[in-house]
Amino acid sequence: MQTMRINSLWRCRVKLSTSFVPEIQFGPGISKGLVHAVRRFDGARHVMIVMDGFLARSGLGEEIGAALDQKAVTSGIYSDFSGEPKIAHLRAASHMARGADLVIGIGGGSALDIAKVAACCGASGEDPMFYALAANPLPKNPLRKIMVPTTAGTGSETSATNIFAGPEGKKLWIWGPETKADLVLLDPELTISLPPNLTAWCGMDAFIHAFEAATNRNAHMGAKLYAHEAMRLVAGSLEAAVRAPGNLEARGKVLLGSCYAGIAIDNCGTAIAHTISHALAGLGPLHHGLATALGFEATLEWLVDSDTADLNDAARAIGLEDAGALPGFVSELMDRCGVERALPKAFDALSAEDLAVEMRAPENQPMRRATVRDVSDADIDAFAAKMMALPKTL
Amino acid sequence: MQTMRINSLWRCRVKLSTSFVPEIQFGPGISKGLVHAVRRFDGARHVMIVMDGFLARSGLGEEIGAALDQKAVTSGIYSDFSGEPKIAHLRAASHMARGADLVIGIGGGSALDIAKVAACCGASGEDPMFYALAANPLPKNPLRKIMVPTTAGTGSETSATNIFAGPEGKKLWIWGPETKADLVLLDPELTISLPPNLTAWCGMDAFIHAFEAATNRNAHMGAKLYAHEAMRLVAGSLEAAVRAPGNLEARGKVLLGSCYAGIAIDNCGTAIAHTISHALAGLGPLHHGLATALGFEATLEWLVDSDTADLNDAARAIGLEDAGALPGFVSELMDRCGVERALPKAFDALSAEDLAVEMRAPENQPMRRATVRDVSDADIDAFAAKMMALPKTL
Repeated sequence: MQTMRINSLWRCRVKLSTSFVPEIQFGPGISKGLVHAVRRFDGARHVMIVMDGFLARSGLGEEIGAALDQKAVTSGIYSDFSGEPKIAHLRAASHMARGADLVIGIGGGSALDIAKVAACCGASGEDPMFYALAANPLPKNPLRKIMVPTTAGTGSETSATNIFAGPEGKKLWIWGPETKADLVLLDPELTISLPPNLTAWCGMDAFIHAFEAATNRNAHMGAKLYAHEAMRLVAGSLEAAVRAPGNLEARGKVLLGSCYAGIAIDNCGTAIAHTISHALAGLGPLHHGLATALGFEATLEWLVDSDTADLNDAARAIGLEDAGALPGFVSELMDRCGVERALPKAFDALSAEDLAVEMRAPENQPMRRATVRDVSDADIDAFAAKMMALPKTL
Repeated sequence: MQTMRINSLWRCRVKLSTSFVPEIQFGPGISKGLVHAVRRFDGARHVMIVMDGFLARSGLGEEIGAALDQKAVTSGIYSDFSGEPKIAHLRAASHMARGADLVIGIGGGSALDIAKVAACCGASGEDPMFYALAANPLPKNPLRKIMVPTTAGTGSETSATNIFAGPEGKKLWIWGPETKADLVLLDPELTISLPPNLTAWCGMDAFIHAFEAATNRNAHMGAKLYAHEAMRLVAGSLEAAVRAPGNLEARGKVLLGSCYAGIAIDNCGTAIAHTISHALAGLGPLHHGLATALGFEATLEWLVDSDTADLNDAARAIGLEDAGALPGFVSELMDRCGVERALPKAFDALSAEDLAVEMRAPENQPMRRATVRDVSDADIDAFAAKMMALPKTL
């Protein structure tokens, strides 16, 4: 068939759907326009803000509240959460969102995910569990949403995915375009307080989002547009952002790259590195970005052996000759950014078999199946052994 | 100020707002999924279709109508227009759109512009003139819209701009995000019947949209992402699409490039080539794409003398060494695509001064002012003389 001979353009025949991309405003200080931005949402009279606790304590929430008040817009703040979102956080935020016209999320991926879900549950009055794992369709008219990320990694501001721990602690998700932002404000100034290790971990997560979206079985030209630019932006500036936290140009490029990577995964999802990082998360507390970076490095040499056109395109997007140069480039990037290859001490009590079991769990199969090279059971065991051989010194 | 020293990233401080991008589905045959796509718009019971006359006569409209009917969705077709849209066309289409839930536009830029305006006026019941030149705000809840372009040039499917001739024949516009598509279907198969000369003219228009958006005073990183890809896609495939109309890969790349170029101008607008082409349109009938290409070639050498970073970035995006290589590249591209440098015979009766007057008309100043090099009155006269010195042999 002619259409199979050409290149990835023709995968489009099956599917190239580039999902809608919200309006994105970017630049140092752009978040100071937040109150002005609220006024664009006609008739917004009551705003619910989900904000990381440390930001709320810094007085930022009150500052925004006072500025909104001057425009005759009332507001409430929910910041009573920490770590990855739990169902209780979603419920509390959703309850607060009832009666609001607009939800603003300011913070890391957790704050944004909580805000996005609250905008849906606040509109419908349903419990978040009603929508978990796509049990029921999301409301067609959720509250409008403005997302203001303060870390550069998850890309939650441009994705339709929202992760939380359910009533039994199991990782669940709520997915749907109804949870997507209407407006995104990307302000590098908000990211400068992020410590170097978190900057590196989040940045690697963003790079890997872009790489996996651009090279997995779902990859298509539309998403590669965003993914390649994300890879260029993050790879080109992450080390500078880690070494000089106040370098706004580097911060800005990593933040924009993370946002574009979010668009890429919103279109094409991830792959094997995320199978590993989600499996690790099922075993114990470990930063998602670090877990993903470790899983990526452990599998990349195996992956690039498949030598696909998409893998070579990704390599060339960041100035490499071909896919074979990727493993060395990535390990060097992690070195330059000071990423320590280690797991937390708590993982000492766990075996490679424990990790392999998690990697085979049903919820981690979509990422495994999306991987461009077939992941055999022997591969799973080999990757699990490689991961658990890391020093447990964190 | 530090932020002014760095590069165009920092123009973002002032403004990098990337407007929302609709979901885009792309691929040969994708338009066959139109009826399926309609079902995604919950509750759509009556659909109004704006379609080019020749497509309607080909039976495509009845085919879609019958398929919708099977899904218990009624439909009506408006195809009683030709050439660029006039106020009478907008009025007739808007009248038909009353009571519809969804508007589908299928055709060239005219069909799409009419459909987009009808979706707004059909929702509000207002006359199109109520919204012309931003006289009044557009309705916040327009009818939902699916756009299916059959030419690759205007980018209307992803822009918020809609052009028409007002009651006195003057070119007017209706602008606003409320007129933007919710879903775009890009099917290269629909473009293969476009004759070679129109393919070349429309493709040059798309290339110039991308180039001007990426290099004018409003250019920013967000729009350059789309603009550079658009330039690569169009420059790389336009000749093949002109020479072998059935080459679906080339057709697809030009169509996708045109769509990305639409996103770029939706963000940053155009520049001097469009001042000239709109001025020519004020003098007599001339295809917009050809007029733009002629205006572009006549001004490019003058433009690249300003040697900005954006101009050099644009040149490198298509594999050239620097901006100085652009004029030669563009003239050669036009040669390869068989673009005859000539105006219609009717222009014989007009002088360079006539064109210069049109170029100085208030409605053509925004594009002139957006041009990265200052356009003096002497420049206007020189460009007008150069344009009117073209043979009048079309």
